Amino acid sequence: MGNLNLFLFISVLVSILAFAFAVWLYRWVVALPATNKRVEEIGGYIRKGANTFLRKEYTVLVKFCGVAALLIFLFLPAPIWQTASILDNLVIVIAYIGGTVFSAIAGKIGIQVATIANMKTAESAEKGGLKPAFLAAFRGGAVMGMAVVGSSLLGVTLVMFLTGDSTALLGFSFGASSLALFAKAGGGIFTKTADISADLVGKVELGIPEDDPRNPAVIADNVGDNVGDVAGMGADLFDSNVASMASALVMAIALGKKMNVDYAAMVFCYAAMGLLSSILGVMAARMGKKGDPTMALNMSTYITTGIFTALTAGATLIFQFDWRIWGATAVGLFVGVIIGISSDYFTNDDKKPVRYVAKASESGPAFTILSGVSYGFLSVIPAMVGIGVAALVSYNLCASIAPGDPTAGMFGISMAAVGMLSIVGMIISNDAYGPIADNARGLVEMGNMGEQALEITDSLDSAGNTVKAVTKGFAIAAAGLTIISLLGAFMSEVNEAAGEIILTGFDIVNPTVFFGMLVGAAVPAIFSAMLMLGVDRNAQRMVEEIHRQFREIKGLKEGKKGVIPEYDKCIDIATDGALKELIPAGLVSILITMAVGFIGGVEAVGGYLAGNIVSGLLLALFMSNSGGLWDNAKKYVEAGNNGGKGSEAHKAAVVGDTVGDPFKDTAGPSINTQITVVSLVASLMSSLFLAFSLF
Amino acid sequence: MGNLNLFLFISVLVSILAFAFAVWLYRWVVALPATNKRVEEIGGYIRKGANTFLRKEYTVLVKFCGVAALLIFLFLPAPIWQTASILDNLVIVIAYIGGTVFSAIAGKIGIQVATIANMKTAESAEKGGLKPAFLAAFRGGAVMGMAVVGSSLLGVTLVMFLTGDSTALLGFSFGASSLALFAKAGGGIFTKTADISADLVGKVELGIPEDDPRNPAVIADNVGDNVGDVAGMGADLFDSNVASMASALVMAIALGKKMNVDYAAMVFCYAAMGLLSSILGVMAARMGKKGDPTMALNMSTYITTGIFTALTAGATLIFQFDWRIWGATAVGLFVGVIIGISSDYFTNDDKKPVRYVAKASESGPAFTILSGVSYGFLSVIPAMVGIGVAALVSYNLCASIAPGDPTAGMFGISMAAVGMLSIVGMIISNDAYGPIADNARGLVEMGNMGEQALEITDSLDSAGNTVKAVTKGFAIAAAGLTIISLLGAFMSEVNEAAGEIILTGFDIVNPTVFFGMLVGAAVPAIFSAMLMLGVDRNAQRMVEEIHRQFREIKGLKEGKKGVIPEYDKCIDIATDGALKELIPAGLVSILITMAVGFIGGVEAVGGYLAGNIVSGLLLALFMSNSGGLWDNAKKYVEAGNNGGKGSEAHKAAVVGDTVGDPFKDTAGPSINTQITVVSLVASLMSSLFLAFSLF
Repeated sequence: MGNLNLFLFISVLVSILAFAFAVWLYRWVVALPATNKRVEEIGGYIRKGANTFLRKEYTVLVKFCGVAALLIFLFLPAPIWQTASILDNLVIVIAYIGGTVFSAIAGKIGIQVATIANMKTAESAEKGGLKPAFLAAFRGGAVMGMAVVGSSLLGVTLVMFLTGDSTALLGFSFGASSLALFAKAGGGIFTKTADISADLVGKVELGIPEDDPRNPAVIADNVGDNVGDVAGMGADLFDSNVASMASALVMAIALGKKMNVDYAAMVFCYAAMGLLSSILGVMAARMGKKGDPTMALNMSTYITTGIFTALTAGATLIFQFDWRIWGATAVGLFVGVIIGISSDYFTNDDKKPVRYVAKASESGPAFTILSGVSYGFLSVIPAMVGIGVAALVSYNLCASIAPGDPTAGMFGISMAAVGMLSIVGMIISNDAYGPIADNARGLVEMGNMGEQALEITDSLDSAGNTVKAVTKGFAIAAAGLTIISLLGAFMSEVNEAAGEIILTGFDIVNPTVFFGMLVGAAVPAIFSAMLMLGVDRNAQRMVEEIHRQFREIKGLKEGKKGVIPEYDKCIDIATDGALKELIPAGLVSILITMAVGFIGGVEAVGGYLAGNIVSGLLLALFMSNSGGLWDNAKKYVEAGNNGGKGSEAHKAAVVGDTVGDPFKDTAGPSINTQITVVSLVASLMSSLFLAFSLF
Repeated sequence: MGNLNLFLFISVLVSILAFAFAVWLYRWVVALPATNKRVEEIGGYIRKGANTFLRKEYTVLVKFCGVAALLIFLFLPAPIWQTASILDNLVIVIAYIGGTVFSAIAGKIGIQVATIANMKTAESAEKGGLKPAFLAAFRGGAVMGMAVVGSSLLGVTLVMFLTGDSTALLGFSFGASSLALFAKAGGGIFTKTADISADLVGKVELGIPEDDPRNPAVIADNVGDNVGDVAGMGADLFDSNVASMASALVMAIALGKKMNVDYAAMVFCYAAMGLLSSILGVMAARMGKKGDPTMALNMSTYITTGIFTALTAGATLIFQFDWRIWGATAVGLFVGVIIGISSDYFTNDDKKPVRYVAKASESGPAFTILSGVSYGFLSVIPAMVGIGVAALVSYNLCASIAPGDPTAGMFGISMAAVGMLSIVGMIISNDAYGPIADNARGLVEMGNMGEQALEITDSLDSAGNTVKAVTKGFAIAAAGLTIISLLGAFMSEVNEAAGEIILTGFDIVNPTVFFGMLVGAAVPAIFSAMLMLGVDRNAQRMVEEIHRQFREIKGLKEGKKGVIPEYDKCIDIATDGALKELIPAGLVSILITMAVGFIGGVEAVGGYLAGNIVSGLLLALFMSNSGGLWDNAKKYVEAGNNGGKGSEAHKAAVVGDTVGDPFKDTAGPSINTQITVVSLVASLMSSLFLAFSLF
């Protein structure tokens, strides 16, 4: 086990390095000049709003997680009155709580820096120009990237070091997932409630510009970017990263026992190399002479990819790891890049789909929707095929490690997921950059900082949107691979709980499996529907409130000096509504999983997970891509094409964008987390399903 | 085999009875008085347009089917240079051609009577009132119902009698499917092209009423109802019915050989009883005193259901069939009714979803879309769970017939599908009633036949819409069950081709299967997208043409006497566009199936079929139900709610309806056929995949 301890140690070192780098970046951002009083005032509103939301959300979460922790203690891994040792249950509870706390802290750090970086970016845009403004936004985002990946690696390392137990790893992962489910769904409902209402009343009804300070929802909109895209997305990728490592480790431990090779060491080695590559990639991020922020973001992603490939190849050579496993990791990363590029095709305004939808908008909103839905459907092909090929190749590469035993192949798939997520630090940095730039644009508008600053932040914002589609494709694909390997993890948990090999697979032709598959496929649809109806209901409440303010606050519509809207009322509506709507959506998917398990038993659950993955991937990709497409089609029209701002095509494109908002920022990305949560619930409860199922 | 011949004979008798009844109904409809010159003139345009489309479509189909027949002859069931006897290949070709021809004839008969019944219904509404008008429309539709079910039963019976071979049955079914794929997709593109363009320019831009004769697209719109909803839907249900019988027979033959019991006799007995029940149900259809057409349609469905259950129970008693199989059939029918009722909940304007969407429309079209998509997603639950339960129960009921052999259970599932489709004659009658009533409404409007006739045809039309949602739920669910059993058929075809049991199931954890599953799940999305983009492109061409006519034909807009638009130009655009757009969509799903088979082999195909079914059901249910919901939400607003006609809510609801149109009438129902075609291609090509696959 010498190798394992070495790499656990290295992982801790790299995590600490990431934290140190995050602190350095944070101080760099904070040290940027801040002189504009107006920006500081509005920025203060935003920070206060974000913290209010976070406080309320975490209060709800403490209750939820408390109940979950109690249930885990009572029932997992075995009912407390049957367990060999109460300590086993206690370990899982502690791991679970650890998972939630680590994720919550990373989210809090992200919000903290994002709500400072937005102001600094705005000021840099005004005084320094494009390059320094880009760097302020990017480095602000990178703090989040480093915090998330550092803490996820540190957490998994600690759990592994202290327990060495795969169920505890799944417990930690479940903690991260249950936080992510609520952070992503809650933040997603908040952000889209605010965004949609602000746009509908502001842009469509009154024709005032985006981010106009007269709009009562404008601060809530900016808060939403932070709680949805920074904190929510951070929790989501924290979760994916932990889940991919946990499932790889479950397989590594099972395979390691059999082959007497320490595969877990390899998982930690690669994960540490991934974080290190991201650190180097972030350091390398600069804008070239042409000053194209999209290019800068993409270049740093490619640099990270290159460094990771080289570093892991070197480590494999030095420590004489198995090259087949390295191959699986490389395949995962490669397919991830391909999927990212294909997402870009469907959402980039240089390409046919966006142009087509913009053109179709000339005939009215129905055509915007129809063409967007169609391209959204088409966009699933490359990712679905890519994930399938990655799974097939990585499985077959590694299957020969232990011929006849599916564990080896499954380990290959999970390593492909680890490979795809190896550059997650870079991905989060790019992703968190987006809302910071978006916020900065708002501050420039609200602070009247001039045309030039507006142009700069506009171009930063647009780069954020483009890159976001790419990183989202990455995240969804990686979640898909992870969950395929969690299916393997579920199987080995069942066999371990049974004390013998009772499951060697799940046969589609078995109607119990098929029954599970059909139910599992319905769950992502139900989950998305509940979230979107939540946004819908909440936005309608908020639109009423905005109307009320414009009606009752005298001089607001005319922009009379000194008249400011009641921003906090809108923030409260978005917050309370989001928290009210997220609980049922989160619970329902967990409860259906339990119902299937207790009715149909472990075979039904196997089918259920497969159905859930397949339809979850389909819907997540469809919703994320069509949402991104509509967003960019609207921007394309606003840039003066197909009639430009104010035209019928523009109105239609705004309808598309409004539909796309909860698609891409609420439902689509939350499905990822829903699938992960469901897979982990299934794995953790496997022994209960085995003991108590109806059939 | 005495029993089998008896029931083959009875099946032929019942088919002939159905044809005789159809002729009687046809003569009854034709004998209704026709005096209105204007109606006859417009009705003539519609008939001519429908026949033009049919002629052009069948011309394209002859070419396509010719190529397919040649390929079948060369390669199926085995390549001609390897086959035991060329006769085997020839039999399949003939069965294939038979399937296409029988279906085409049934479609042609349906169009023939529908384009007469529409005029008779209009005149009956003017002169006789609600009851005779209802009967004219219903009996016109019933001709189609009898023709479709009579010819499908006759066709399957003949193939069984002449060959007794399961591959030939699959060949006949494939013929029916390939015609249905084109008829449904082509008709679906035509009808929605016309409908959307007519509405957009007429209702939205110019504010003229539906079916206004000034609108150049109005005849095309009415033609579309016939070619899409009558001929297309008829081909679709012809296909489902044949496929369910074929897959049940494949299983029955395989199981019969093993158990030395003639299960095929039972399949024919039940199918014949189903047709007989439908004949009796159609005869019983009358409007009660309260004069509610929806009630009359639903009652005759329930009557048919009751008669079928009683007749089959009696037959089972007399001929000492296995009660477990009867149970499976009854479960299928029962679940079908439940699914129909749940579709009704999501699309009926008395229920919450429609009301909610109508209310949401007050906030603009984006909310119409978001809430409709959400309820559409929710609507998949009852059907997915219902299909799963039906499969589970019917499998387990019948599995004990031959313990340890999945064939018995699979036979149970296929009999559940036969049960669900037993009342298909009634379903088609109800479904074909819809477009006839819709057309009649158009004729009343265009012929200026007065307010009372308009009111009557409006209420007939609205009943058609409500019932349509129910029958569509039935059809999708039945297709789902059929295809689950086709998965079993695929497996037994593979084992037969291999000459030994090489497949006992498809393991989800096997990455080859999983790869297939991911690709299979993407196919319905691609297929729908291609169809919808086809409608979108085609409608844009047509909108341009309508604009041109209003611009260039003087006096048209003002409704100057004697000025008529160039109806045929619009019909030509819809026809040519539909034929151009349908070929790629149809081909792509077949080609992807072949690619998966030749790359991944039979295991990949098994996963592919499962993924295809799961995502196909999900999308078909989602699209059909959300489309129906939007349609009825619009009607609900037009009835004076949420602001009524002309309000902002109405405009938003029209956008929803326009989006829903290709959802529910083009893509949604075509997915059914796509899944069936793919399953049959897989079964037919199984021996080729076995011999020539890459992996």
